[in-house]
Amino acid sequence: MSTITPPTTSPLGAAVADDRLEPRDPHRLFPGDRRTRDIARGLYERVATAPIVSPHGHVPAEWIARDIPFTDPTALLVSHDHYVTRLLHASGLDLDELGVGGHPVDPRAAWRLFAERQAVFAGTATGYWIDEELRNVLDIDVALSAETADAVYDRIQAKLDTPAFRPRALFERFGIEVLATTDDPLDDLRFHGEIAASGLPGRVLPTFRPDRYLDPDSPEFATDIARLLASEGQETSFRGYLTALEARRAHFIRHGATSADHGIEDPATVDLTGDEAARLFQLAVSGRADAAERQVFRGHMLLQMARMSVDDGLVMTVHAGVVRNHSTATFRRFGADTGHDFPRRTDFVRGLRPLLERFGLEKSFHLVLFAVDETVYSREIAPMASFYPSVYIGAPWWFLDAPDAMARFRSAVTESAGFSRGSGFIDDTRAFLSIPARHDTARRVDASFLARLVSEGRLTEAAAGAVIDDIAGPQPRRVFKL
Amino acid sequence: MSTITPPTTSPLGAAVADDRLEPRDPHRLFPGDRRTRDIARGLYERVATAPIVSPHGHVPAEWIARDIPFTDPTALLVSHDHYVTRLLHASGLDLDELGVGGHPVDPRAAWRLFAERQAVFAGTATGYWIDEELRNVLDIDVALSAETADAVYDRIQAKLDTPAFRPRALFERFGIEVLATTDDPLDDLRFHGEIAASGLPGRVLPTFRPDRYLDPDSPEFATDIARLLASEGQETSFRGYLTALEARRAHFIRHGATSADHGIEDPATVDLTGDEAARLFQLAVSGRADAAERQVFRGHMLLQMARMSVDDGLVMTVHAGVVRNHSTATFRRFGADTGHDFPRRTDFVRGLRPLLERFGLEKSFHLVLFAVDETVYSREIAPMASFYPSVYIGAPWWFLDAPDAMARFRSAVTESAGFSRGSGFIDDTRAFLSIPARHDTARRVDASFLARLVSEGRLTEAAAGAVIDDIAGPQPRRVFKL
Amino acid sequence: MSTITPPTTSPLGAAVADDRLEPRDPHRLFPGDRRTRDIARGLYERVATAPIVSPHGHVPAEWIARDIPFTDPTALLVSHDHYVTRLLHASGLDLDELGVGGHPVDPRAAWRLFAERQAVFAGTATGYWIDEELRNVLDIDVALSAETADAVYDRIQAKLDTPAFRPRALFERFGIEVLATTDDPLDDLRFHGEIAASGLPGRVLPTFRPDRYLDPDSPEFATDIARLLASEGQETSFRGYLTALEARRAHFIRHGATSADHGIEDPATVDLTGDEAARLFQLAVSGRADAAERQVFRGHMLLQMARMSVDDGLVMTVHAGVVRNHSTATFRRFGADTGHDFPRRTDFVRGLRPLLERFGLEKSFHLVLFAVDETVYSREIAPMASFYPSVYIGAPWWFLDAPDAMARFRSAVTESAGFSRGSGFIDDTRAFLSIPARHDTARRVDASFLARLVSEGRLTEAAAGAVIDDIAGPQPRRVFKL
Repeated sequence: MSTITPPTTSPLGAAVADDRLEPRDPHRLFPGDRRTRDIARGLYERVATAPIVSPHGHVPAEWIARDIPFTDPTALLVSHDHYVTRLLHASGLDLDELGVGGHPVDPRAAWRLFAERQAVFAGTATGYWIDEELRNVLDIDVALSAETADAVYDRIQAKLDTPAFRPRALFERFGIEVLATTDDPLDDLRFHGEIAASGLPGRVLPTFRPDRYLDPDSPEFATDIARLLASEGQETSFRGYLTALEARRAHFIRHGATSADHGIEDPATVDLTGDEAARLFQLAVSGRADAAERQVFRGHMLLQMARMSVDDGLVMTVHAGVVRNHSTATFRRFGADTGHDFPRRTDFVRGLRPLLERFGLEKSFHLVLFAVDETVYSREIAPMASFYPSVYIGAPWWFLDAPDAMARFRSAVTESAGFSRGSGFIDDTRAFLSIPARHDTARRVDASFLARLVSEGRLTEAAAGAVIDDIAGPQPRRVFKL
Repeated sequence: MSTITPPTTSPLGAAVADDRLEPRDPHRLFPGDRRTRDIARGLYERVATAPIVSPHGHVPAEWIARDIPFTDPTALLVSHDHYVTRLLHASGLDLDELGVGGHPVDPRAAWRLFAERQAVFAGTATGYWIDEELRNVLDIDVALSAETADAVYDRIQAKLDTPAFRPRALFERFGIEVLATTDDPLDDLRFHGEIAASGLPGRVLPTFRPDRYLDPDSPEFATDIARLLASEGQETSFRGYLTALEARRAHFIRHGATSADHGIEDPATVDLTGDEAARLFQLAVSGRADAAERQVFRGHMLLQMARMSVDDGLVMTVHAGVVRNHSTATFRRFGADTGHDFPRRTDFVRGLRPLLERFGLEKSFHLVLFAVDETVYSREIAPMASFYPSVYIGAPWWFLDAPDAMARFRSAVTESAGFSRGSGFIDDTRAFLSIPARHDTARRVDASFLARLVSEGRLTEAAAGAVIDDIAGPQPRRVFKL
Repeated sequence: MSTITPPTTSPLGAAVADDRLEPRDPHRLFPGDRRTRDIARGLYERVATAPIVSPHGHVPAEWIARDIPFTDPTALLVSHDHYVTRLLHASGLDLDELGVGGHPVDPRAAWRLFAERQAVFAGTATGYWIDEELRNVLDIDVALSAETADAVYDRIQAKLDTPAFRPRALFERFGIEVLATTDDPLDDLRFHGEIAASGLPGRVLPTFRPDRYLDPDSPEFATDIARLLASEGQETSFRGYLTALEARRAHFIRHGATSADHGIEDPATVDLTGDEAARLFQLAVSGRADAAERQVFRGHMLLQMARMSVDDGLVMTVHAGVVRNHSTATFRRFGADTGHDFPRRTDFVRGLRPLLERFGLEKSFHLVLFAVDETVYSREIAPMASFYPSVYIGAPWWFLDAPDAMARFRSAVTESAGFSRGSGFIDDTRAFLSIPARHDTARRVDASFLARLVSEGRLTEAAAGAVIDDIAGPQPRRVFKL
């Protein structure tokens, strides 16, 4: 391992000395004017060390169950983080140079590419997470650059080789109270069982994510349905299909699941008679449904998922509005989730109406709506959540999970829906090391927003304190039935 | 009546003592940094006590004409305010527990529910109005909560029982110069006549609101048209229909009306030949028009309303983009305007083009556009209003009638349209007690926005002063021809 | 020439004395709180005097080639600036009173109308440019008003009559390094040749703008195509048509062009087989294509333009989302570009997908996207530009080329795309005198945005400095291949 403090006479040494980082600003993300900033700091300090409640995310349960070490800095921070790789790709790198999609790569060579292009992350949320992870989790005290790339790589690798940087130790260090994973309905969930039996000081819960079994446009739809039916010994009928889905949900609930997640392009729902639904099901599984029929079936199945949530109590989360795999050439070569999923407009008000006509007034039903189309915040989601007892406002998601976007979100929803209709912060991440930074960011942004309301005489400091206390823990526990 | 200062040894007393409110912050809603804040305060003080010009709203004329006392705090502040009841409903209460839709309720029991759930209003515009009403109008000096619910109720009830809290006394105390109501075209407007004859120090004007007579999708369309034609002795022909509408507009103008208001879901207009319009009219009144024909007819009638405004001078206001009565079960049980009207996207540029092709260049025609879809501010409304002499930018409406949303509005429209193309503030409310707070809020937000322009060197303080002086009175008087 | 300091005893004198302007605030457009403001000033000063790189705009090359004097203040600042004339038109003036569309007008009379209605520009970007031009370029030190109209007119006229205020002298005084014009594909570009040969200390480059030759809905489409084919000796075939376009592009490249610009209403692209494209071409030129066919053809030609850019290296800029000539009566009387072009919604993600499927991963292809629909910034453009190496984020355009809109833009795109994916500032103007003010504004707004990131601990001051240094020059040179 090289040292990060080489003699300052070498070129690298000079670079490292120049790049020595100043201490982290304790007021980061707070407003500029001193008065509001002081209020923000006071509010933030109430929740700065509160346990992390993460009711939706993508960390694999196997990591925690088997305490699988992170192999190297590149695998940890680059190859699997499509926020990172997409910007490097835009800057002119090929995804295979970064090890995306399992393409073999020399991790140190990929790390150097990452290090020398740090400028592309300036001002981005990703740049902020990286900075927080390097400093706060990995104790790196120099700026990452072409000059420091190797030294930083070695320092991180040395950390990863110690027990303190294996997933279970970090889980405890991060103060995670609940961490939800996202799982295929046919998953046996044995890793969740192992974790529950392991004495980990925190819960790891599965989440039911049935998209591929609900959408006839999914590439393996017929095969997936056949597997689903077989897994529960059901015949190829709409009734058997619903029964199998219900049984898999029950399996998830037995393993601690409290929510089911739905990732869809268009939040459109359709109410059908049983006969019509059965007819479309047969067309869909036989591959004979046309585009309109597939769309109707998909919309009906979203409504059926709400019906099942009303019946079995799983919180229903909807992530809507993403056009997946925009670049077919990239998808073919590197697979899904490789940085070319882009948002589109959505219409929650008219799209969800059939679902809400049926189940919107059910008080035990929790429907959490996540958007990547900011225009729906003040126009659709906040108004709906401030009437329907079942509708909750999902935290800013994906491209919007960033300080300015979070601030715009709070401004857009609070004046009509207040704070009580929110989901609490959702990190929705596979980047395990970024979890503390993400929750910390949300707390700082909420503190800043509340501080402004206090500064503007719209909320007392005591009321603002009660709000932030609630958002940081009780709210997500309540909304996600934890 | 209980007192609100019980001995501090009782639990209630302690609660009340703790909840004693600090004095209202005179800088509320102003920016945080001292320099801009001081400029904002100076601008605000120019207009803080200017008379209230309210050219569009929903206070019933009968209240003023007959000086009908407010019966109790719940009727005054809860049951009829769907901003309040929708958030309480979302929190898990049933609307009948709050007396919505005329459902009988023990007002004190409903008030307690309202009081104990004050936290849902934290940060909302509604919470701000309630706070302002309780403090500034009703002289309540403790925070409303479960503990203070009864004491506050009794204190308000005692106020309501005095002459000083009857509508006409409040009208005078509030300094209202003009208050417009919203009325059915067949209304005889006798209450407006009574008010005009009564010596009230201010004007109460009717507003012509013909939606139900223009839209074949309106539930009682055929019956309504029959009543309209009968009222003016017209035959069932398109010509007779137009004549009857013109006659009712003339009736309104004779009673002081200066504007006609149109609440529509889609701001689409259609220009038709007389024959085609006559044909669609016959289909519509006979119930034989299909959905497309009903849509075309509706779009044509909006254009006809513009034509009549050009002829008779009534200002045309358009409130577009709301999907009404989203929850059918709620509508059946509690009626309209019960908190489940939600915005949708709108297209003013292409929708209004046929209307503006016909009348957009008419200088005496005033068309004021109100939106609940924020995306149209910089994209559609500001650009159109900065070319067409007839188009005015309506103040932020409904879910957007709140400090942050107002600030976003000013930022979105001012850089292309300036201040001269605005409508002035519109409270659009039935909550009579909130009128001063709403106008005060608009003045504070405008002062803050202007102060920022001054602070940023984009406007002199003198110019900013001239702008706020204009917005607070001359502008709405000019736009609404008062 | 009248003097602008008449004796203060006359009414006019008093007015002028009152209107004497205070010195320009050196902190204009910076944030209000002192700490952030000081950082902003430091960042701004790094680039305040950097040369102007203007890779897209509408100044006629003839002005520079022939050094044509500006005739009078009205022609210079009023008649040809549709930002100015549209607001005056909205205020009730007729466009012919302002000399729009070549209508003859007494320039002094028009100037007086402009001067007396300065209030309509308060708070607008146009008002800010006018102020900057009058003070910084024309040395006017009194506020323009009815009272000062004549004096200011005379003072400006006197300036315009001097050599220092002719285009080439101003070009040099403004420090313009590169200025791109926008030109018809059949232009012989002789003015560009003359300029290149003239020793001007800066480059003036043509830009290929082929809209009228690509869109069958263009009024003279068949005639234009015939002229295009004839110019290059091609037959009326799709192949000949493509060859002619390619030849004209080569002609532009020989005259220094580095980009081709496309102004379209809908950013929809279509991939077609050669046979199908050839069939649609024949329908289109013969006037027999229906609306759907015209739309498909137009969408295909946008894709063909990308293909040609990949082949010949011209940067492709797309300005999308404008409904042109909304008021037919105005268009007939005054022509195009007279203030009634209005934005509409756009869909870049789905619209550009066929084009990006073909060419999005080409690293030498530069596609710069400009929007007037703000909703696409965080939803579409930033995500696409942070994956595709070919996609760049165009600077805020048209109605959005203003301080607040620029700040919203930076906030909307930076957190996902950073700074490296931007185009640099684009003035896109025909108002020659406003060019320094526009670039200065962009630099101030960027400095303010970056200063906030520094103040919030999201970027070091050194990193912010590197960003602003890059944005002000290297970035546009790189993106536009200058």
